[in-house]
Parts: sequence; structure tokens; C-alpha cells
Amino acid sequence: MLDRIKHLLIGPPLPTQQLGERRLNKLRALAAFSPDALSSIAYANQEIYLGLVVAGSAGLALSLPIGLAIATLLVIVALSYFQTIHGYPSGGGSYIVARSNLGTLPGLIAATALLIDYVLTAAVSLTAGVAAIASAFPALWPHRVLLAVVLLGIITVLNLRGLRETGTVMAVPVYLFLLTFFATLILGSLKLFAEGPGSLASAAPPPAQTLTAFLVMHTFAAGCTALTGIEAISNGVPAFYPPEAKNAGRTLLVMAVLMGLLFVGSVGLTQTLAVVAAPEETILSALARSILGRGPAYLLVQVATMLILAVAANTSFGGFPRVAALLAADGFLPRQFTGLGDRLVFANGIFALSAATAFLIVVFGGDTHALVPLFAVGAFLAFTLSQTGMVIHWRREQGGHWRLKLLANGGGAVVTGVALTIIGVSKFAEGAWITFAVIPITVAIFLKIHAHYQEVRKELSLRGLPPSIKPFPQPRIVVPISGVHRGMVDAIAFAQSVSKDVTAVYIEMEPGSGERIRETWKHWWPNVPLVILPSPYRSLVGPLLDFLDQTDREHNDGQIATVVLPEFVPAKWWHGLLHNQSGWLIKVALLYNRRRLGFQRAIIDVPYHLRR
Amino acid sequence: MLDRIKHLLIGPPLPTQQLGERRLNKLRALAAFSPDALSSIAYANQEIYLGLVVAGSAGLALSLPIGLAIATLLVIVALSYFQTIHGYPSGGGSYIVARSNLGTLPGLIAATALLIDYVLTAAVSLTAGVAAIASAFPALWPHRVLLAVVLLGIITVLNLRGLRETGTVMAVPVYLFLLTFFATLILGSLKLFAEGPGSLASAAPPPAQTLTAFLVMHTFAAGCTALTGIEAISNGVPAFYPPEAKNAGRTLLVMAVLMGLLFVGSVGLTQTLAVVAAPEETILSALARSILGRGPAYLLVQVATMLILAVAANTSFGGFPRVAALLAADGFLPRQFTGLGDRLVFANGIFALSAATAFLIVVFGGDTHALVPLFAVGAFLAFTLSQTGMVIHWRREQGGHWRLKLLANGGGAVVTGVALTIIGVSKFAEGAWITFAVIPITVAIFLKIHAHYQEVRKELSLRGLPPSIKPFPQPRIVVPISGVHRGMVDAIAFAQSVSKDVTAVYIEMEPGSGERIRETWKHWWPNVPLVILPSPYRSLVGPLLDFLDQTDREHNDGQIATVVLPEFVPAKWWHGLLHNQSGWLIKVALLYNRRRLGFQRAIIDVPYHLRR
Repeated sequence: MLDRIKHLLIGPPLPTQQLGERRLNKLRALAAFSPDALSSIAYANQEIYLGLVVAGSAGLALSLPIGLAIATLLVIVALSYFQTIHGYPSGGGSYIVARSNLGTLPGLIAATALLIDYVLTAAVSLTAGVAAIASAFPALWPHRVLLAVVLLGIITVLNLRGLRETGTVMAVPVYLFLLTFFATLILGSLKLFAEGPGSLASAAPPPAQTLTAFLVMHTFAAGCTALTGIEAISNGVPAFYPPEAKNAGRTLLVMAVLMGLLFVGSVGLTQTLAVVAAPEETILSALARSILGRGPAYLLVQVATMLILAVAANTSFGGFPRVAALLAADGFLPRQFTGLGDRLVFANGIFALSAATAFLIVVFGGDTHALVPLFAVGAFLAFTLSQTGMVIHWRREQGGHWRLKLLANGGGAVVTGVALTIIGVSKFAEGAWITFAVIPITVAIFLKIHAHYQEVRKELSLRGLPPSIKPFPQPRIVVPISGVHRGMVDAIAFAQSVSKDVTAVYIEMEPGSGERIRETWKHWWPNVPLVILPSPYRSLVGPLLDFLDQTDREHNDGQIATVVLPEFVPAKWWHGLLHNQSGWLIKVALLYNRRRLGFQRAIIDVPYHLRR
Repeated sequence: MLDRIKHLLIGPPLPTQQLGERRLNKLRALAAFSPDALSSIAYANQEIYLGLVVAGSAGLALSLPIGLAIATLLVIVALSYFQTIHGYPSGGGSYIVARSNLGTLPGLIAATALLIDYVLTAAVSLTAGVAAIASAFPALWPHRVLLAVVLLGIITVLNLRGLRETGTVMAVPVYLFLLTFFATLILGSLKLFAEGPGSLASAAPPPAQTLTAFLVMHTFAAGCTALTGIEAISNGVPAFYPPEAKNAGRTLLVMAVLMGLLFVGSVGLTQTLAVVAAPEETILSALARSILGRGPAYLLVQVATMLILAVAANTSFGGFPRVAALLAADGFLPRQFTGLGDRLVFANGIFALSAATAFLIVVFGGDTHALVPLFAVGAFLAFTLSQTGMVIHWRREQGGHWRLKLLANGGGAVVTGVALTIIGVSKFAEGAWITFAVIPITVAIFLKIHAHYQEVRKELSLRGLPPSIKPFPQPRIVVPISGVHRGMVDAIAFAQSVSKDVTAVYIEMEPGSGERIRETWKHWWPNVPLVILPSPYRSLVGPLLDFLDQTDREHNDGQIATVVLPEFVPAKWWHGLLHNQSGWLIKVALLYNRRRLGFQRAIIDVPYHLRR
């Protein structure tokens, strides 16, 4: 039943040998890895607008210069990651690059930053996507949290189905967005050409603050979110068709060019057309509305924006589980994250990402602007560590043009490092501190887990054991019985089949009942000694545990007695309520006892199956 | 830790031999068994008032006649139960009497009616008690549900401590109530003597309905709740000091006289002093206020009323668990209800009663008046069946004065039967239907449970087995291994100690890993064959179950293989999260498989205890 629901949702299981086949061509890979990067313009634009509009028209006049600065940053970072792809064709995420070049600790910091970044990408993209559609349909505005969580659920299920299906589903919205948005930008340019620039001075609200250097820095920091997602391809190189690195590198360059055009084009048009947003509306919505009016074309743009942002959340579902699996393979996360699910995806990683994202969406009330400070820190920390790692990599590896490649990555490291500092300082109080606090805690947990696995590995080593391992002597067996009936027959027969030393034990809850039991017992099992234990306090497990401990001491043979538990298996689940759960009580007691004594007995469950 | 909290709440465990000693003297027994009966006047008065006030002063003028009719009923029922106590000195509740004289089905109907009655006694007493105190402190009125549930919790804990402690705690409020209430009635009589009767015509609100025969019947039916609780002593005869029946019978008569005086006195004074209630106030509170004013004496009466009603709920805690234990001993309820807890009380019955009562209080919003229709039906159905059973009993047993005794019980049966009909008809739509619906459903469940126990008993019988039961042949043992490490050593050694036929099985989740395992395996356990099972769909349990089924078929020896599960026992609970829960998965799968195949394999857990 559960299996069927599962198959309906995520499809039938796939054999492991299909793993190599689940590759993506470039068009599909662009759709799978670029949406975060492309759609970043939605919230980056919004952040620049919100950052500058408080300074009125004088502030908004700085939109384009700030946009161009960020675009320059984009070029540098893209070239830097182009080098990374060729340096690490097997998939060089920030974690691998930082770890292998800078050491374990920087690697773990990069990994943590990256995981946080993936969660925030999903959260920010979903909330921004819902904001885009709620700009067009204001009735949805109060239900943004619910809508974002529902979208998250849909994406989670699609990802559990596997990457290629995901690629197909996701390709349509990506190309729809590119098409409609470029068309809007072209129409906007024509409008600008025909009508001339608008007047910011008359359109902008009166300034609430004066324009300071800090305000500009602050806006630049928030706008840097435009770059988030650019690293996704370098993480997913093995998903491309061979030659993987070459195909991935080309896809990265195409993506960077598209990002730059969209970003600079939209920021530029917003400023020159003097667009300002209504309350409960995003600036991109205002831009599209001013160019296209309120007709179906505008609605199509908003739907496309929502869809690509939803798809952007999907980028995280590609990246997060992979990084978690890498960490788990190195022993920094529970082993379960390495397990490929039925559909050859890292199902546990997908679940973890989905849960964390839902948590953030709910806690931050579905507000993109509140999430952005947390977001930018993680992304730029990972960028900086990864680029710095690549610098070390090229110095060590050398090879053709290595100085040029080192320069590219060095430039990336410096500019992302500077951007990180600006973001950290200007956004600290607004939420960046959360990311700064979570990173060391997470790294400490990683190290703790790793230490545990190391210890267990040492403990489990067979080194030092004698060359041939001897079997134990036959176990002493104790069978707690509840009476003389058919349910005991199999248990005693099994106990006798595995040992000559079998003792039955009856806990006498009701004084005198033991003697009656002994009479019938003698008749059926004359060879099995029966010990009757009084239980003045009507406890089942107390006298049994005492007896076990006492006989272990008396025998003093280095062995602990094994317990055989006769267990009723009812035919219907509700029948289980009608039988004293003695077996269950004894099992729990032996477990609890083990915690006290530092050992646990072997327990043999011998089922007796009730036919009705 | 849990043990300590438990001891603090309910006291240390008591040995079974103290069971005989937990008896009550008459003063304590009156306090333990009478509060429900005595305190009934609180809600019976209220029901009579609410029933008649809608017909204005003409209605209220009928209070005393109706009160006298109910008092007559009380005398008949009390004499009837006096006979029951002497006919069944070992504790003759309605269930035992109806079952042994009328047969199983009437017995079960009586038992169900009784159980429902106990639950409703608790619910009605608690809500009425809270209403009494909220009449004096109107700020508490909106919090009646919460207050009632908190009181219920306190009473539950006291009962888990055991009956004698309960008797002591409860005696004070009972005698306080008797003292303060009789004092009030005496003062009221003096006032009546001094000032003369009041004028109902001027005090009563204008009539909303005309006075009809149905309205009178309806009020009589609701007022019959005054009798509830009168049967408690007949159920608890064994708790008295010997001679039990004589002591219990005398206590019953004392109780009936006190009930009659309180009831007729308060109804009579209410009518003759022309007392009417304010909104959010009970009529008893209005009576006390009109006699005592608003001073401390009035407050003391309200507190005493609240306390005795809380104590009345306690009567149910004496009765319900006993009836449940009787039913369980006869196989109509799960056996767990017969188990005496640490403190020699039927703890499971106490829990069940407490849960059901809390449910009713919450669902009916803590409103006594809404609960009364459900209440009266259960009580009078149990009365009628019990008295009818006694008629049969005397005819069968005969003995001294049997005709007189038969007449007493016959009279009881007739009047309670008539009252039941009146209640059922006039209160049907108001909630009596719920009780009528619940009774057959509950009886059906009792019969179903009984049938199951009968079948199991038959199935468990050793009759027909050969006189000497042979042990099984040595089991074939299969050990699923996760690798070659220290955790396997004990499991293999144990398996070898109990059987010569041991096979290790490795599920190859990652193609090729099996061969590496085989190499090391050969080195350490050359004598234990290792089977490597490919798992193309990365399922752990699928290939294992297939292998077990297949080898069972191949051996065709009538045996099913036993599984030895090596189990990691981590040193700290959170370490459990860091290991693949393979053992757990396999256990669940074997259980699930059993449901499909109709059998379950014996499972041997061999723990390996991680030191850190």
C-alpha cells in the first residue's frame, strides 16, 4: 500500500546500473543549473531598489552604476569558476576545492557556507517567486507563506523522481522566462527610444534619508545576491555528457552572459524609465507593467518570473544533496546521506533540504527581504574560500597557462573577499550575524561526527584478534514463561535445539499460582528445570533481572545468559491490545539494564503465530 | 529518574500481602462511597429548578412535590440495595447480580450502563463542583473547563496512591459538607419560622412556557439524578471491615437518611423561601446566599459544596476500576485491567476513567446541564437490571424472609424501571440517545474481545500434543553482515555456538564491493560460507528476504531459517543516528513479511556494545 503510493509519487525504483546514463545535454543542463543565477535578477533588482528608494530620486539615480559594478564582479567570478571547472572536472564544489587545497577546516567552513547557501537559495527563490505572482494578483499577498510551502512540496516530489525528469519539467519555464524577459527589455528599449527617459525627480517619493556612503555600500551588498547560483555548474560537472568539463565550461559562459544582459538591462531600464513600485508590488513587476501595461503580456511575464524562481529553488535540490553526500562519504555527516534512493537520487539530502527550507520560510514569514542578509554571507564566503583554494591549486599543479589561470582565480578571490567584507559589515545587524553564528556550530558538529566515526572504525578493527576466532561455548538459556500452554512449546523446543542448558522461569505475580504451574510443567517438560520467582511487588521484570544477574554471578564462567522470549504474534493488529505486553516489557527492561550494566544480553525472539 | 517522579507522585510500591489490610472503617467508608450520593443534591436541585423556572411561579410551586416523589423513590431503591448487599456480600455490583441471575447479555448491558454511569458521575460532579465555586467567584466562570480538568488530574493522582490514603484525604470535605449544609438548613428553617414563607409569585421570573404534564415529567426525570451513587456501597462491600455485609448495609442506611434529609430540606426551603437564582449562579448558591448573606459563612458552604463534589468524582474512581477488573477477569475487557499497580490499585482502570472523563468535560464544555440526560439513563438502566436480577436471585435461593426480600427488590425494579422509561422518553433528544447508542456498541466490543480470548485459549491448549515434546533440530542460521569488522565477531561466535549450519550473507549495494569483502572474510572465518547477494535496486531487505524464502524452499526440511542480527549498541543515544539502521530495517521487514507469509522467523539479537 505505502509502496504503491510511493511509486505513484516518485516512480518505480531504478537499477544502479542506470546511474551512468542519467546525464544532461547542454540545453537541459542550462535549465537544471542556471535558474538560480538567472532568476537572481528578481531579488537583486528588488534589493537595489529598496536600498536606494529611501534616498529618493538621488538614490535611485545610482541604480545603474551599482548594477554595472555588480556586473563587473559577475564577469570576474564567472571566469574564476570557468577555471575551477577545468581544474576539477569530477565536480569541484567549494567544499572539495577548499578542502583539498586549504585543509579540512576551511573545507568544512566552505561546505557549511554552501549548505546554508543552498537552503537560502531555495527559501529566497520561493518567497520571491510568490511575491512576483502576488504582485499581479494582490488577493494572494496575505497567503505568501502557504503558497511558498506548497510550491516547495511540489518541487521536493519532483526531485525525488530523479534529475532527468526534473530537467525536462524545468526546461520549459527557464526558456519561457528568457524569451518573455528579453522581449520585455527590447520593448522597453524601444519605448525609451521613442518617448525618451522618464523623470526620477517627479516619480520618486521624497527622500527619507540622505544619501550616504554606507547606504550605497549597503545597497551594493544586497545587490550582490545577483551572483548567487553561479557556482552551481562547477558542482555538477559529472552530470554533463562527455567531455564533461568542456560542455560545463561553455554552459557557464553562456549563462554568465545571459545573467549580465538581464541584470544590467533591467536595472538600466528601471532607472531611465523612472519606474517606481506600488506598495505590495515588486520593482520588476512595476517595470513590466510600465512597459507592457496591465494586459496578458504583463501577466505572462509575472508567471514566467514566478516559474523560473520556483525552478531556481530546484538548483538547490541538485546541489545540497550532492554536497551532503560528499560530506557523509568523508564521515562528517551521517552515512545515510550517501545512500542513493530508489530513483538514484540522494533522497535523505532532499528531505533535509526541504525541511530546512520550509522552516526558514515559516520563521521569516515568507519575506524575501528579511532572508537576503543571511543569504549573501553564505554565498560569498563559499565563493571566497573556493577561489582562494584554486589559487593554491594552480600554484601546486602548474601546467599550461597556469599563471593566467592563477590570476583569474586570484582576482575572483580578492573581489569576492572584498564583497564578503562589505556584506558582513553592512548587513551584520540585519541577519548576517545568524549565518556567522551557525557556521562554527555546524562545523563543530561535523567534527564531532567525524571523531565518532573514527573511534568506531578503530574499535571495529579486527587487528589484534587471534588469527582464528573461536565460537562461544553453548549459551546458558533462560526462558521466562507466562504459563503452560501452546505458546511455550516452540520457545522451549527452540531453546533445547540450541543449548543443553535451558531453564524456564515463572514470575509469580499471584502468590500460590507458581505451584499449580509447576505441576503441569513437570508433566510436559520433565527435563527442563522450572524456577519460580516470587514477585511481592507484582513487577514482572524486577525479579527476572535479579535472577539473571544472580545466576551470571554464580556461574562465574565469563558468560551472560541468553534470554529466549516466547512472543505472541496476533492475527490482527488490534488483538495485540488484548494481550499483556510482557515480552515487550522484558525487552525494554533488558535494554534499560544494559545501559546501567554496560552490556546487553543476546535475546532470541521465538514467535508463536496465533491463527485467529 | 522516571521511577523517582512516579514514587514522589504516587508513593513507593506496596507488597501484595498488604492487600487484605487495605480496609476501611465505617466513617472512612462513608466518606469514600457516599459523596456521589450526598452531593447529588447539588445538581438534582439545579435540574429541578431549571426544569420548573421556565413555567414561572406556578412551575416552581411544584418543586417540593417533585422532591418528595424522588425521596420516596430513594427509600425504595435504598432498601432494594440493602438486600443486594446481603445477597452478594463479596461485592454485588449491578454487573455481577445481573450476569449471574439474568444471563451474560443483561449482565454486560448492566456493566456498560455502570461504566458509563461512573464516567458521567465523575464528569457531572466535577463540572457541578466548579459551578458551585464559580457562583461565589464569578471571575472563575469562563474557566470552568480548565478548572474541572485540573481537579480531575489531582483526583487521578490521589487515587493512584491507593484507597486508604484517598479515604483519609476525602473524609474531611464530606464531613465539612454535612456540617455546613445541615447548619444552613437549620438556619433556613429558623428564618422561615421567624419571617414566614416568601412569595414565589413576586420573586419568580414571568413564565416562558405553560405548565404541562410533560414539563413536570421532564423535571422529575432530571431530578432523579439525586439517586445516582446510591449503588456505590453495594459494589464495594469487600472494602469494609468484617462483618463486611453488616457494616456495609448500615452505612448504606445512614447514607440514605442523610441524602433524603438534605434533598427534601433544600428543595423545600428553596420553594418556601421563594429563592430564585441570578444568572451564572446555581440555585443552591442562591439558597445559601439568601439564608447566610454574602459573608464568610456563605463562602464556606460553596467551598464545601465544591469539595464534596470533587470527592464525589472520587466515588467513580472506587467503582469504575473494580467493574473493569471484573469484566477483564471474565475476558470481556483486556487482561491489563486486572493488574494491580504498584500501590495495589487497578491503575489501568483509573487511567481509562480519567481519560474518558476529561473527554466528556471538554466536549460538553464543562456544562453540567448538558451532561445530565446522558447520566440519568445509565444510572437507572443499571438500577433496573440489578434489582430485576435480585428478584430472580431470591426466588432461586429462597432462605429466611425471602418473600419479603423479593418484594423489596421487586419494588425497586418496578419504580426504577418506570423512572428509566420517563427519563428515556423525556430526555431522549437532549442527549439520552447518546447513552442508548453507546451501550450496544460497547456490548458488541465486549463480546468480540471475549470471543478472541476464547479462541486463543482453545488454540493454546496443549491437549492433543504428543506426551513428550521433542526439541527442534538444530536451526539453520543466516547472519546478514555489513562488512568484516569487530561487530560481527560476537554474532558469528554466537551463531556457531548454537548451530553447525551457519551462513553469512552480504548484500552488495555497491557493485564489486562483495569480492573485497569475500577476501577478508575467508581470512577470518574460513569455515563460515559467505553468500554475496547483488542488489541492483539498492534495497537491503528485498534480496535478503528472497534468499531466506528460496533456501527454505530448497532445504524443504519443514524448518525456516533463523536470522542472527549483529546489533550495534551505541554508547550515547545520539550516536544511534550516525549508523545505518540496517538491523532495525531487517527486523521490520521480517515482521512485515510474516504478515504476508503467515509465519515469523526466530530472530536472535546479538549486541555489540560500542565503548564510545
